[in-house]
Amino acid sequence: MDDAGLNTDALMRTLGRRGREAAATLRLAGPEQRTAAIAGMAAAVREAAADILAGNAEDMARARAAGLGAAMLDRLALTPERVEGVAAGLDTVAAIPDPVGAEMARWTRPNGLDIARVRTPIGVIGVIYESRPNVTADAAALCVRAGNAVILRGGSESLSSSLAIHAALEAGLRSAGLPEAAVQIVPTADRGAVGAMLAGLDGNLDLLIPRGGKSLVARVREEARVAVLGHLEGLCHTYVHAAADPDKARALVLNAKMRRTGVCGATETLLIDATAAPRLLPAIADDLRAAGCALRGDGRARALVPGMAEAGEVDWRTEYLDAVLAVRVVDGLDAAVEHVATYGSGHTDAIVTEDAAAAEAWTARVDSAIVLVNASTQFADGGEFGFGAEIGIATDRLHARGPVGAEQLTTFKYVVRGTGQTRP
Amino acid sequence: MDDAGLNTDALMRTLGRRGREAAATLRLAGPEQRTAAIAGMAAAVREAAADILAGNAEDMARARAAGLGAAMLDRLALTPERVEGVAAGLDTVAAIPDPVGAEMARWTRPNGLDIARVRTPIGVIGVIYESRPNVTADAAALCVRAGNAVILRGGSESLSSSLAIHAALEAGLRSAGLPEAAVQIVPTADRGAVGAMLAGLDGNLDLLIPRGGKSLVARVREEARVAVLGHLEGLCHTYVHAAADPDKARALVLNAKMRRTGVCGATETLLIDATAAPRLLPAIADDLRAAGCALRGDGRARALVPGMAEAGEVDWRTEYLDAVLAVRVVDGLDAAVEHVATYGSGHTDAIVTEDAAAAEAWTARVDSAIVLVNASTQFADGGEFGFGAEIGIATDRLHARGPVGAEQLTTFKYVVRGTGQTRP
Repeated sequence: MDDAGLNTDALMRTLGRRGREAAATLRLAGPEQRTAAIAGMAAAVREAAADILAGNAEDMARARAAGLGAAMLDRLALTPERVEGVAAGLDTVAAIPDPVGAEMARWTRPNGLDIARVRTPIGVIGVIYESRPNVTADAAALCVRAGNAVILRGGSESLSSSLAIHAALEAGLRSAGLPEAAVQIVPTADRGAVGAMLAGLDGNLDLLIPRGGKSLVARVREEARVAVLGHLEGLCHTYVHAAADPDKARALVLNAKMRRTGVCGATETLLIDATAAPRLLPAIADDLRAAGCALRGDGRARALVPGMAEAGEVDWRTEYLDAVLAVRVVDGLDAAVEHVATYGSGHTDAIVTEDAAAAEAWTARVDSAIVLVNASTQFADGGEFGFGAEIGIATDRLHARGPVGAEQLTTFKYVVRGTGQTRP
Repeated sequence: MDDAGLNTDALMRTLGRRGREAAATLRLAGPEQRTAAIAGMAAAVREAAADILAGNAEDMARARAAGLGAAMLDRLALTPERVEGVAAGLDTVAAIPDPVGAEMARWTRPNGLDIARVRTPIGVIGVIYESRPNVTADAAALCVRAGNAVILRGGSESLSSSLAIHAALEAGLRSAGLPEAAVQIVPTADRGAVGAMLAGLDGNLDLLIPRGGKSLVARVREEARVAVLGHLEGLCHTYVHAAADPDKARALVLNAKMRRTGVCGATETLLIDATAAPRLLPAIADDLRAAGCALRGDGRARALVPGMAEAGEVDWRTEYLDAVLAVRVVDGLDAAVEHVATYGSGHTDAIVTEDAAAAEAWTARVDSAIVLVNASTQFADGGEFGFGAEIGIATDRLHARGPVGAEQLTTFKYVVRGTGQTRP
């Protein structure tokens, strides 16, 4: 290993140790103190706006020199408005009810033992993310809200922006008397840092959250030696059932696809019953095309919508994240459920129907994190669920599924109160 | 790869595919059908008692020929009483409330969206266990209770016993009209089968549960490409606080250590306040020695108990699982909490005190899965918690902590009911 590697390795071990110590303090701090820290972070970000923009200017200059594309540059760019957005996001998290210590359940056994299941922080959480600098603040605040210490590893292209934001987060922690090590950032672009986090920092990392593209999440899933809460992809469906209300169907499909095409809750495939398609599909297609959406359909869909491109197997499997919709005509609910089970990613899937029995069958049989009836798949969002904020949508099945908010960043312990009971 | 390897690989892929199909059926089966299947398993085990004992006789003969130790032979041995015990265990699981479909939470958003968090099965669970043949039935029934398909990989030394029990489990599933593939067993001792399960069976395995010694659990943790719910070790403490009731302290320490020394909830280290030790430790030591327990103490403990062996750093870190107790005199609650944080395994730790403030400080500061006040650490058991049955005690922090019963073998999904809401 070269010197840089050695230094990074030693550095990461130190971050792990300091994170573990800070987690112990944070776990025992009161909710008010955590709230004060997050509110202090918001204030410090507003005070440090100039420094943050200066750091971002350095990142942008490097990115332009490196020839990054327009989309990447836009994700990386900060403006005074976006910095205020970061601070406002922190205010939102400061307002989320503190989950630590909440009693999830409590019961008494025949022998008199009083058993309570109580929420506790997870410990030290690692977040590995890509270019958006605002994740530095969002992720840190949500972890602290749930009583966890966090170690942040952002994209190298946003390092200067992230370091400037991180300095403000530390100031917020100081202002509330909490250890700065509650929120640490990896200050180097050395890729060895990621390897050290995947290896678990000598047992000082309890959970890894990758936030970024499929390749990042897949690598973390494949190589991590610690628990991972990851969002792989959102291949979401909207199914227009035979008994769908026409106006609702038109409004829901248009919103589910086109409100924002780049979010994981955007519908990628429209399934529509053969009995409803002749009535509804042409109008739905007109709405979508008027909004700038390209359509790719199977044979029966194309027969109903002139000029629709042909969709193949690959389209059923593609998360476009773009103004493109795959369309398939199906023969009833069984076929729709089968399609979702075969091609979906278990993220978010909606049915449009006025038939209560069909709605119940859909919610019972579709095994996705979020199953909707007569609502847009774009509601797949922690804020829309009332969580206040989210760090992502989990597509795994264990621990947390769907939007990951402060509650999902906790675990629990059992507190058993007795009066001297021994076990027979 | 040799032929055996190739065959095992193909076999395991098939088990995975069949398990995934069976899980879909099991998930949609009603609670009554799952109950009928488990009750049917119990009846079939009783009917097949002779076959099961014959299979066990083969295992015992092989084990004796291989020169296995007495403890191993006892763990492996089945008697008519033990077979009835297996059937009775199945009756118990059949009586556990079915967790699938239970509403964990439900709320309405300002926009009228009705959001429910509903329990769903995890999917396909792999259980890798060692010699006890009864695990075949316990683990299978608990997985089926929670709507999961299970793939069992028992110890090679118990293969004939496990195959005979498995045949009865299949009969129970058939009797309830559920697919036999809901409970599959790896019919070969080829170690490649474990490797295939660790690799996740082409995505057809959602969770792995290792049940056995530390080396097995550690290997599964290290190599698994799927989520793991594991029990590493139970290095449990009982802390006798200065304000402990003397009689409770004596009864609790004796029970926590000696009721059963081989269970994970057995106390391994006694911590006692320096102010209480002169009064209480001699009597506690007399009780333990009278029960056949060897004592190893630090300097202050040995000064109070003549003939006590010397305990060193290694003792604080040892899960004896035997009639041996490490004893350390500490200077108050802070020191006791510090010792547990340093040497404990986060499993189960108890305080004995009449001081409510000390009890609250203990439950708040000790970050273990189970934290007790004035109760024996031997209560660390799913049955004692009211779960009806358990598949183990989880010492990880994610998804489930502490006793793993039917509820802990489920995940959840969000069911969102709307009336045409689109997202602004």
